[in-house]
Amino acid sequence: MAYDPNNIFARILRGEIPAWRVYEDERTLAFMDAMPQSDGHTLVLPKSPAENIFDLDPAMAAAVIQTGQQAAHAVRQAFKADGVMLVQYNGPVAGQTVFHFHLHVVPRYAGIPLLGHARSMAEGAVLEEHARRIRAAWPA
Amino acid sequence: MAYDPNNIFARILRGEIPAWRVYEDERTLAFMDAMPQSDGHTLVLPKSPAENIFDLDPAMAAAVIQTGQQAAHAVRQAFKADGVMLVQYNGPVAGQTVFHFHLHVVPRYAGIPLLGHARSMAEGAVLEEHARRIRAAWPA
Repeated sequence: MAYDPNNIFARILRGEIPAWRVYEDERTLAFMDAMPQSDGHTLVLPKSPAENIFDLDPAMAAAVIQTGQQAAHAVRQAFKADGVMLVQYNGPVAGQTVFHFHLHVVPRYAGIPLLGHARSMAEGAVLEEHARRIRAAWPA
Repeated sequence: MAYDPNNIFARILRGEIPAWRVYEDERTLAFMDAMPQSDGHTLVLPKSPAENIFDLDPAMAAAVIQTGQQAAHAVRQAFKADGVMLVQYNGPVAGQTVFHFHLHVVPRYAGIPLLGHARSMAEGAVLEEHARRIRAAWPA
């Protein structure tokens, strides 16, 4: 499948539609998953037009995992998470729903099951507050 | 929690116990998950003594994801997988069961649900055959 430059994450990267952004550098952007599986669920994207792990430049993969590490630190501190999952889906059969590469950083909390992936929208005010907490906890 | 140098993956890295190895370089080792969630389920480890994403050196994180990319290509080709998931658990609450950092590379197949994580051992002969196929498909 060819990369679709009008997928929703490409449009977020271009600033055409808003997102609850928490971090940005030359190669990556991190923002809140609008359909979080747990409080603090954050996405990390490369800025290059890659659909999945198969067409992602290895240097960009490195940048994504390193921003993902920072996001893991931030969500653990901001939400006192008991654990963190990193998940990345390639292909519809694997659960990919937006066809720009993205790494899920999913906080886990004792006794609280995950919500389903890409199922229901969170309230904007809640995501805004969560984004603020993650920005405040982002490693220097 | 302090890193336990006698965890099973540390012992595999030191060659004290065997594994169905598929790839090794200076920084990483990849081998078959002995309790696969799907055919071809492969693990990628850094050779440094890191428990999780929080204490993993960022350069080693980069090496792991880059080996993970190669593993994704290999399992897709070797098993004609319809998709691939990358998953990495930090902390028991998140599903981590061995306390040396490891990235799961999990092939997905249309219509075939995943088996549970870390539930049941596969047959050695099957894992040996799968390892052989992944080694043969590893990108040059």
